[in-house]
Amino acid sequence: MRMVDMIQKKKQGEALSTDEIAAIVEDYVKDKIPDYQMSAFLMAVFFKGMNKKEIADLTLAFVNSGDKNDLSSIHGIKVDKHSSGGVGDKLSLVIIPLVASTGVPVAKMSGRGLGHTGGTIDKLESIEGFRTVLSREEFIGNVNVHKMAIVGQSANLTPADKKIYALRDVTATVDSIPLIASSIMSKKIASGADCIVLDVKVGSGAFMKSTAEAVELAGTMVDIGKSLHRETIAVVTDMSQPLGHEVGNANEVKEAIEILKGKGAEDETTIALTLASHMTVLGGAFKDFDTAYSELAQRIRSGAAIEKFKELVRIQGGDARVVDNPGLLPQSKYHLEIKARESGYVSAIDAEKVGVAAMLLGAGRKKKDDTIDFAAGVSMEKKVGDVVKAGDILCILHSNLENTLQAGQLIKDAYSFSDLKPAPIKYIHQVVR
Amino acid sequence: MRMVDMIQKKKQGEALSTDEIAAIVEDYVKDKIPDYQMSAFLMAVFFKGMNKKEIADLTLAFVNSGDKNDLSSIHGIKVDKHSSGGVGDKLSLVIIPLVASTGVPVAKMSGRGLGHTGGTIDKLESIEGFRTVLSREEFIGNVNVHKMAIVGQSANLTPADKKIYALRDVTATVDSIPLIASSIMSKKIASGADCIVLDVKVGSGAFMKSTAEAVELAGTMVDIGKSLHRETIAVVTDMSQPLGHEVGNANEVKEAIEILKGKGAEDETTIALTLASHMTVLGGAFKDFDTAYSELAQRIRSGAAIEKFKELVRIQGGDARVVDNPGLLPQSKYHLEIKARESGYVSAIDAEKVGVAAMLLGAGRKKKDDTIDFAAGVSMEKKVGDVVKAGDILCILHSNLENTLQAGQLIKDAYSFSDLKPAPIKYIHQVVR
Repeated sequence: MRMVDMIQKKKQGEALSTDEIAAIVEDYVKDKIPDYQMSAFLMAVFFKGMNKKEIADLTLAFVNSGDKNDLSSIHGIKVDKHSSGGVGDKLSLVIIPLVASTGVPVAKMSGRGLGHTGGTIDKLESIEGFRTVLSREEFIGNVNVHKMAIVGQSANLTPADKKIYALRDVTATVDSIPLIASSIMSKKIASGADCIVLDVKVGSGAFMKSTAEAVELAGTMVDIGKSLHRETIAVVTDMSQPLGHEVGNANEVKEAIEILKGKGAEDETTIALTLASHMTVLGGAFKDFDTAYSELAQRIRSGAAIEKFKELVRIQGGDARVVDNPGLLPQSKYHLEIKARESGYVSAIDAEKVGVAAMLLGAGRKKKDDTIDFAAGVSMEKKVGDVVKAGDILCILHSNLENTLQAGQLIKDAYSFSDLKPAPIKYIHQVVR
Repeated sequence: MRMVDMIQKKKQGEALSTDEIAAIVEDYVKDKIPDYQMSAFLMAVFFKGMNKKEIADLTLAFVNSGDKNDLSSIHGIKVDKHSSGGVGDKLSLVIIPLVASTGVPVAKMSGRGLGHTGGTIDKLESIEGFRTVLSREEFIGNVNVHKMAIVGQSANLTPADKKIYALRDVTATVDSIPLIASSIMSKKIASGADCIVLDVKVGSGAFMKSTAEAVELAGTMVDIGKSLHRETIAVVTDMSQPLGHEVGNANEVKEAIEILKGKGAEDETTIALTLASHMTVLGGAFKDFDTAYSELAQRIRSGAAIEKFKELVRIQGGDARVVDNPGLLPQSKYHLEIKARESGYVSAIDAEKVGVAAMLLGAGRKKKDDTIDFAAGVSMEKKVGDVVKAGDILCILHSNLENTLQAGQLIKDAYSFSDLKPAPIKYIHQVVR
């Protein structure tokens, strides 16, 4: 195989064979194919796409490039969950204990935040003592005994995807659905799940700005799951504004606790219950979605869900007292109120701007090796549809930095107002299976 | 300027500004932009194209990346000629003395052959003593006194194009008309010409396989010429079979001499006269094309043309006796006759296959640093439209190699036969100005 011929083939819109795709990925990881050929190939893929078989082949080649998590010693059907990334998305913190409380095992590997989106691992680490590095024995043992465990992603999971993603990032080839879909699915499959529930975000804070794109991405990932024999359901959910009220780390943990106590915001409670319902049905705990949904809601009302979260914190070494006393979570020195300059309905909140503001306050990373200030973040007092009078507090910025000017300006820019009440936001746009 | 943004812009089909294009080319030459970004950009250009202004800007950026030949001390209008590359194309050898014989100065920089196409410099070097490296003073002096001189291309002409071309070659981004056109025109403009006549080949031996593509390339180059104030005429000429009868080096010189003596094949005589006519009109020697054509044909009949060639050989140190005694040119040890296995009309000759056969015999280079055997080549006894009986000689292979099997097979494969007389080949397909 000559790489120049592969580029030419894809450029002409032809499909590559399983062996060709495997060879491209393998040779690239081994540095036998230079970056300049791979980037030309990726741009050709952007323009010409890939068919279902090619996308599944690419996913499998990514999986085969590194370690595969063997979860076979865990009893039951392992169901994983993935979010395509949003602002204020603390749903994994809610879903892990909720699903585990039904007996369906959740062996979760999660990422860290970058740019305007946060990471579950960072959020959990804002709980004092919470360990996100567990030995394989402890991880498997916890899942078998407690039905749940969460760790940071292994360094050698899908290294081919990692190498290609870094190249896509600097060659304007990120926004290709075959490439996004194979990247996400390869990580889930290498993580060892039997079934996968995908939360595909759509809107101003998500990578997919339109529902049509999000549905296409969702369908592509579901097709990969089918091809590679992992039952997969994708739920397209709203990210036209941040989820809930809290964006940051410690404050998102606090809000996750509220959701698990039944006092959460409607948007994130609904989406969390929807995702968890699909997961527990796939995991065999309930016969159908509606049963699952009402059973899970009942677990929140009964206190079983929050007890399970307390258990998660405890078994991973964290200070479980935060559940009853969130004041024990890191607190920032400064709390700056951002007030409305006009009256009316909040008609839109640009989620990406809020995410960037939180990052600037210290809650996120600009670059991979930046450190995080767990106490930093944004509390949103007003959301889309709320009535606001000039002078009302829109948001509170939490920070240990004295200069929060740029973040404050971003928050002000993020809000749009209208005299007319905006149409209610649909939390769940579509389910693709 | 961030290169990733430039890639994104082009990927979305937007036009880049003059400054953006200049910065991309300048930074790439300075290694500030890595190959992997440039190749992704080139692939985006392949798919999204460039508008007239962008193409002219790119051409100028190439010109500005290296040395510019200053021909201002040459009297008269300097007219350059370029061929997009063909098989058996010895027309520069004919055109230089022909145009110079009218007093229009020809200050020619030519390239060497690579792959299936030969180079004028290589061909001339098959004449013993012929020097293709001249000092600047000698070059300018010869043009002022004799109206002609030819040298190999300067090493530092359009280095940006050279670097980008090498990358295109290994990333399947060669076949992009904006990139081909700017590459060719930048070299002509850096060479210092006032006016340019382009011979755009079309057919099996040319890079452009269809007339539509060739006309598009021709038009794009003429537009560049207009934008950069160089009067440019492009003639789309036939390369559906090799030009004339000889493909190689010494044998092509021999055939060029025949053309200049009025005993050349009809195809190459017609094309040479057409190109030279456009050049001499642009150079101000004649009032219109028809006058030029008949005056130049007269110069061939009168012997003025071949005398001027003799003069060219002599002033560049070559053995001018070859003109009257072509037997003095290098001769190969072996002469292998390739005979027809069937009877009928020759309906097609794949020029690229003949070119590759000549290269395999030693007449060309596979890689840039291969050496050339001037005596090697192919003499074609039969061309399209000729009647052939089984057993007739189609070609004679000249070589110093004992094993000519592969070349012989290529020649056999190159010929197609038919019971019907094929339609006559049009030598000049279109003139674009």
